Order: sequence, then C-alpha cells, then structure tokens
Amino acid sequence: MAGPQVLLVAGTHGNEVNGPWLIEQWSKTPNLINNYGVRFASTIGNPLAFEAGVRYLDRDLNRSFRAEFLRSTDSSDRELMRARKLLDLYGPLGRNACKIAIDIHSTTASMGSCLVIYGRRSSDLALAALVQKLIGLPVYLHEEDEAQKGFLVESWPCGLVIEVGPVAQSVLQFEIVEKTRLALEACFECIASISEGSTIYPRGLIIHRHIASFDFPRDLRGNIVGLIHPLIEGKDWQPIKAGVPLFVGADGDGICVEHDECLIPVFINEAAYAEKNIAMSLTKREFWPFDVSWKNSLEGLFT
Amino acid sequence: MAGPQVLLVAGTHGNEVNGPWLIEQWSKTPNLINNYGVRFASTIGNPLAFEAGVRYLDRDLNRSFRAEFLRSTDSSDRELMRARKLLDLYGPLGRNACKIAIDIHSTTASMGSCLVIYGRRSSDLALAALVQKLIGLPVYLHEEDEAQKGFLVESWPCGLVIEVGPVAQSVLQFEIVEKTRLALEACFECIASISEGSTIYPRGLIIHRHIASFDFPRDLRGNIVGLIHPLIEGKDWQPIKAGVPLFVGADGDGICVEHDECLIPVFINEAAYAEKNIAMSLTKREFWPFDVSWKNSLEGLFT
Repeated sequence: MAGPQVLLVAGTHGNEVNGPWLIEQWSKTPNLINNYGVRFASTIGNPLAFEAGVRYLDRDLNRSFRAEFLRSTDSSDRELMRARKLLDLYGPLGRNACKIAIDIHSTTASMGSCLVIYGRRSSDLALAALVQKLIGLPVYLHEEDEAQKGFLVESWPCGLVIEVGPVAQSVLQFEIVEKTRLALEACFECIASISEGSTIYPRGLIIHRHIASFDFPRDLRGNIVGLIHPLIEGKDWQPIKAGVPLFVGADGDGICVEHDECLIPVFINEAAYAEKNIAMSLTKREFWPFDVSWKNSLEGLFT
Repeated sequence: MAGPQVLLVAGTHGNEVNGPWLIEQWSKTPNLINNYGVRFASTIGNPLAFEAGVRYLDRDLNRSFRAEFLRSTDSSDRELMRARKLLDLYGPLGRNACKIAIDIHSTTASMGSCLVIYGRRSSDLALAALVQKLIGLPVYLHEEDEAQKGFLVESWPCGLVIEVGPVAQSVLQFEIVEKTRLALEACFECIASISEGSTIYPRGLIIHRHIASFDFPRDLRGNIVGLIHPLIEGKDWQPIKAGVPLFVGADGDGICVEHDECLIPVFINEAAYAEKNIAMSLTKREFWPFDVSWKNSLEGLFT
C-alpha cells in the first residue's frame, strides 16, 4: 500500500523548544532520525510564539482547532489564523496534504515519554497500539472534557501527540531530545510497516483514560493557596490511593480532595495548565482488546 | 545593637513564582516564617512582569542597578523605572530605608539551596559566612564578569541572593517553597544574633568563586548546535575533570571546551541564561579565612 504523507509539527507551543531543535538538527543531519521511508512534511506549529519564546500570543494554538473557530474569518487572533493556515497547507485537503499528524510536545511534568490521543478515534487507537507494542509507551486518552477542546491532531484523520518530560519551558535538554527522537522513529517504523504489509497488530492497548482534572486549592479571589503534595509531585503514572492528600498548604498540612481509589495522575504541575485550572489530571488504567475496526480505519488512510 | 531594617524582595524575575507565593502566604499566616524579631519590609521586585508571568518586560531588572542606569531619567524602560522606585522606597536613603537586602530567586538549574553574592563586599561575606555556618549553604561569588552587572542587592550596603532550584519557570513547588523558607529563616536568625550580641563568627567561608561562563556551541548564525552533555546536566556543584565534554551534539558526540581541572559548574542550563549566552558558569572552590574587617562592615550597619 502507498502510505499517506505524515505531518510532523513541533513548536505548537512556542516555549516547548526541544522538538523544534530536533527537527532543525535533522534537516542538517539527514540520518539523525530514521523515517523508514515514510513521506513527511514538517513545520513549526506556532512560529510567531516560537520566535517570542512564549507558549502562545493570543490563544493556545492547541485548543484552536474547533470547528467554529476554523469556520470564522476572524483575522485579529494570530493563533486562529495559524490554525487555518496549517490546515490550508497540510490538512487532509490541503495543498501539501497529510493524513496523519504527529504533534511533538514537552511538559514540565515528569511524564517521561508518552502518547496522547483525543476522543476514541479508531485510527488513533490502532497507531497508538502499534507504537505501544514496539516501544511500550504509556497512552493517555483525553476525552469528555468540555473545558479542553480543539486539539491540533483532531483536524487530521489520524493523529498522535508525543509528549516528553520533565523539562522546564524554554530549556533544551539532550535527554528530552533523545526521547523525542526515539518516539518519533517508532511512529515512522509503525507507519512504514503498514505500507509494507508487514504489520502485526497487538492483542490490545493499555490506555490511561481521562477521568477528571483537579485544580489547585484557591481562595475566593482565585489565588492558589495549596500546592501539589510532595508525595505526589513528580509521581505521574503512579496510582494514588483514596484518601491520600493531593495538595499541601504552605504550613505543610495535607489537603485532601475526594477521588476514586487507585486513579493514576498525569500532567502533575504542568506549568502551562495552572491558567487552565488544572493542577493534575486523573486517569483510569484499562486494557482495551484490539478491535479490527481500528485496523480498518488506520489502513483506510493507506491507498 | 538596634538592627537595620531588612528588605525582602521576591519576584525580581516575574516568572520565578515560588518566593512571591511564600511571602504572600506568610502575610496571611504570620508564624509561617520566624523572623527572629528582625524588622523587615517586603515587596514584589517586578510586579508588572510578575502579573504578566514573564521574567521581565523591557530589560532584566536584576541587571538594571547600574549607576549610569540609575542616574538616567529614561521613563520608557519599565525596569529602569522600577529600579529607581525600589531605591526611592527601600534604598539605604529611601523613605522606608533598609540597609540589608535579601533577594529571593529560583532557577531551572539543579542548584538546591544556595546564596549568591556579588563582588567581594565585606558585609556580604560576613553574613554569608554566618548563614553557611548555620545551615551549610554553598555560596557562589559572582565577580569580574563585564557582561553581567547591575544586580539589585549591590545597591544596598549588604545583600544576598537566595537561589533555589531546580524548578521550571512559572511552576509552584512545595519543596522549593520550603527550601526558600528555611534559607530565609536562617538569614533572619543570623541578623538577629548580631542585634543580640550573641554572634559567633565562623573561622572562614567556603566560596565558589566565579571563573568563567561558557556559552552553548553555536553556528555562525548564532543558533545553538550543542546541548549540555547528559553527564553534566543536573550536576551543579560537582567538580568537572579537565577533558570531560561539557556539551553534546544532536548525534550524541561529545563536544569539549578547554577548561581548568576540577572547576565546579553552577547554573547549568538555567532557562533564562541562554539569551545571555551562558550555558553554565564554572567556579573554583576556595576556603577564605574569616577576616575581622568582614565583621566590622556588617556590624557597622547595626547602630
């Protein structure tokens, strides 16, 4: 099967600098990343924000791919303009059309390397399952969150986020670059295997399904009055027992928040999420048996 | 002896949020920090930058306290305006005069808790020696660096920076807040002991004397082409043998930079220093015997 062109996006958030640096070095050293023969286009997601060294200028680009935003002709919002331009250029019907999008991010949370997918799209589940089988990355399924919508990859028929942390905003770190490189190569290898007809799909996918996000404790004026508890800080992917305090006051006293037993935190203390009222998200770890419809959706993009 | 008023500054860099949060919580919970009876005033160093969540708006406030800047009447630069205002309000001749300044910072580098002093002012050396004797903090002496001048504390007769890391910019972290609180209490305890006449000065001070700063490897256009070597990353305060590569290319090959044997790195990969062309600074660890002139300078501020 002929494979679809893959879009690589780095710097969707302008202060997540490791992905853009990797792609830039790759352009000068072609054998830095093995693309396994997969056709791809690459771009800086938000070049103006990247230049300014900030996450975004007017609005988070990775919350801007909502149908109502993309339909509008508002030209005062630089991220909405950029979202429309990315689709014009690289969207599934764009001038340089791509059918799979891989969006490279970093986080201040101790997430290690992982994949993030949105909703339960069969094509995403199939590709995530292949990558997980190859190199074992955990997968965070973000869904049913009215407050957070309009992610970039949702505008392509198949799309994954590669998320690597912890790293401070605006800091280049070799280990983060290396982990990003390895995750990206794994994506290429899996996509190539489909073109070659050599894919062996796994029996299923271990997923961390989004349950809820928790904000920091705040006072009536909205000021943060409690921080991540030191026993939780940096413990992304590690189950939390019920009754364990998630937060701590300045005086060291634990602050409990009611939650179910053995939920698994992700994006603990991501710098950019405090403004979104998210101190951490809790997920439920589940095994989802592989469904043949996933394979059909993904392979439907290979014609 | 009556003690001088102490100025506490937090948020001199607007995206270093842990100090300001600690001071804010303290205002609501007076027993959170023991000030040992020391009189103090506290302020947000750069409130406009703090509000905006950025390090600075027009210029790094903590490089703005240069005589020629302070003399000028330029009102187009918000940090120069703020520097002059801080001196009008809290300077040694200000309306609410302070003679000792403690400036609270955080860093993305793995510095733990430490003190930073500038030049070789006797009063600073005396106070740093007392704090080091009490809780053992390492002391970085920044000096003879033409490219970096005009630090806030230099405009007060005595002044220390408390520096705590690693923490990402804009991230609140309980451990960082706690370390800041303990360092601040130690400063208060030492200052109080002088007022009470109960000070026992140490035999000397272990100092990490600034030798040189190294920039990232860059290409002719100024783009970074090498990162901190993974064997150096996070190893602040740990001696580096001569010949060990400080940097690494995207391909994983080490990049050596000539430096003396057993120098000790500090501020490795501080996010804000890349724009200042500093990837790390190297220091020499020295024992400086306590000099009675240090004591006289410090105690001269207590009248």
